Amino acid sequence: MAGSVRVRAYSSSANLGPGFDVLAVAHTAYYDEVEVRLEPGTGQVVVESVYGPYASQAGRADTARRAVEELLKITGTDVSNHDIVLRVYKGVPPGRGLGSSGASAAAAVKAVELLLDLNVSDSILVKAAGRGEAAAAGSPHYDNVAASLLGGLTIVSFDKDGQLYVSRIEVDAWFALFVPKIEIGSSKTKLMREILPRQVSLDIAARNWGRLAMLIAAAMRGDLRLMGHMMMQDEIVEPIRSRYIPCYDTVVEAALEAGALGVTISGAGPALIALASSREDATRIAEAMTRSCKCCEIEDVKIAQTAGPATKVKW
Amino acid sequence: MAGSVRVRAYSSSANLGPGFDVLAVAHTAYYDEVEVRLEPGTGQVVVESVYGPYASQAGRADTARRAVEELLKITGTDVSNHDIVLRVYKGVPPGRGLGSSGASAAAAVKAVELLLDLNVSDSILVKAAGRGEAAAAGSPHYDNVAASLLGGLTIVSFDKDGQLYVSRIEVDAWFALFVPKIEIGSSKTKLMREILPRQVSLDIAARNWGRLAMLIAAAMRGDLRLMGHMMMQDEIVEPIRSRYIPCYDTVVEAALEAGALGVTISGAGPALIALASSREDATRIAEAMTRSCKCCEIEDVKIAQTAGPATKVKW
Repeated sequence: MAGSVRVRAYSSSANLGPGFDVLAVAHTAYYDEVEVRLEPGTGQVVVESVYGPYASQAGRADTARRAVEELLKITGTDVSNHDIVLRVYKGVPPGRGLGSSGASAAAAVKAVELLLDLNVSDSILVKAAGRGEAAAAGSPHYDNVAASLLGGLTIVSFDKDGQLYVSRIEVDAWFALFVPKIEIGSSKTKLMREILPRQVSLDIAARNWGRLAMLIAAAMRGDLRLMGHMMMQDEIVEPIRSRYIPCYDTVVEAALEAGALGVTISGAGPALIALASSREDATRIAEAMTRSCKCCEIEDVKIAQTAGPATKVKW
Repeated sequence: MAGSVRVRAYSSSANLGPGFDVLAVAHTAYYDEVEVRLEPGTGQVVVESVYGPYASQAGRADTARRAVEELLKITGTDVSNHDIVLRVYKGVPPGRGLGSSGASAAAAVKAVELLLDLNVSDSILVKAAGRGEAAAAGSPHYDNVAASLLGGLTIVSFDKDGQLYVSRIEVDAWFALFVPKIEIGSSKTKLMREILPRQVSLDIAARNWGRLAMLIAAAMRGDLRLMGHMMMQDEIVEPIRSRYIPCYDTVVEAALEAGALGVTISGAGPALIALASSREDATRIAEAMTRSCKCCEIEDVKIAQTAGPATKVKW
């Protein structure tokens, strides 16, 4: 058992158009790191410190702590006469649709898995981290945590018995991430769910799952052009959420004109993610998005690649 | 230009659980063949004869004729001083959910494409055949025709502009097809659509598309076990349509006990399709399904493999 383990997990963008609640991609734009160690104690999970550029917005890193508690519960792990002590580096901006809480949860469960030699399946890690993420988002979501944990493009799916399935698809892609400074309030994810329709017509739902199926097939073949086109075909979630992003139409159009293969809201927004096949294209797209935005303040614009899984940081 | 061209297209099973209206697999259980030739005439498409085991149930093969008319229209092809003459061999039983009209339409458009050297894209052939299929089903459906035309497992999807996309996935699988003799009436496909809900909850829809995404990823990896499991996870269409198949529960259970990786309604039913990874397994499953069925007459039980695309028959 190592004295301490530090794990990095990357930011991610969920949904990607028709993949609402099931699809996400991890990217190198931002990352969180969680360092864990055992101290003599009473079986508690304790956050010792939260630091880094977004520490002030991350509260007490409840997400990471709760994710670890879930992992211990699911695996029946007893650390009775020890505490698990977490130090959380917050590098993913919260409240932007970039999987910030998911990255913390992913890094935390992976670090504890390695620290305690738990050797559990990916789906157990995703389940624990997803439940931990519920501390931040209100209800458990598994899409971002799956991407941050496994890297690449991930699908999460529950069967009728509530069994969680996770699948990772290798995608060699570049992204331009446009992060506007729009304050939707502290319960943004909750609001962004409440504005969605409770019911959709079967016709529209079936169109949507056909597009998602096509997106998955395209991604698995490395056909980024088709993948990008399908990212833009959501008729259910994107039209509603895009209303909360004042510069949406302008920025999307600018990205497409600059060669983006697809542009869509990252998670619940307000960040936008554009797909590209090279660093040069992503750079040009990011510049075009930046130039086009006149109606809101820009918090950040990033070029990124598909990220790998949450892994131990050598130091 | 050949004197005449004869093309074989195989039966298919649409939906496969969560893939309602977008997914289908072609299988070697049954096939139609369409032979086409040019005769001096006035630009008509003429069905000269319909023959074979299911000729009496196929009417005048309107599906094949209309599909060819659509292909000529879409491609702007003029055969003004000729007629296109079709001879249709009906080997796929109609009204069973086995893509019978789709197979005729697929064979017909492929035969005419080869006869006239049209060299059009797969999606144009699928579009023409799907519209032809509307002659039988009431409204155009593209899932079965795509599978019969391209072979393998196929996804059809329309983007927001109405552009049709078709994707073919290689799947090396075996199937047991159980075809009960249930008469639902002449407009079975129409009725089987009318009984479906117009609206579904967003939660259930999202669960469904997650399962379909997982099914596609599994199929592309050759993971038939996961593919089969996901085939059984539809909560929208299958629970309703299965009520019209009296022996559904019994036969599905028997198939699973005999080692089926998944069992679901084939298209709009009443046929059931079970997935297997070998001929031996498929044979055992077919026998178990046959033995288990006490409450309805069995029309046919077949072992099949994934079928290839609609192709010219050498003779």
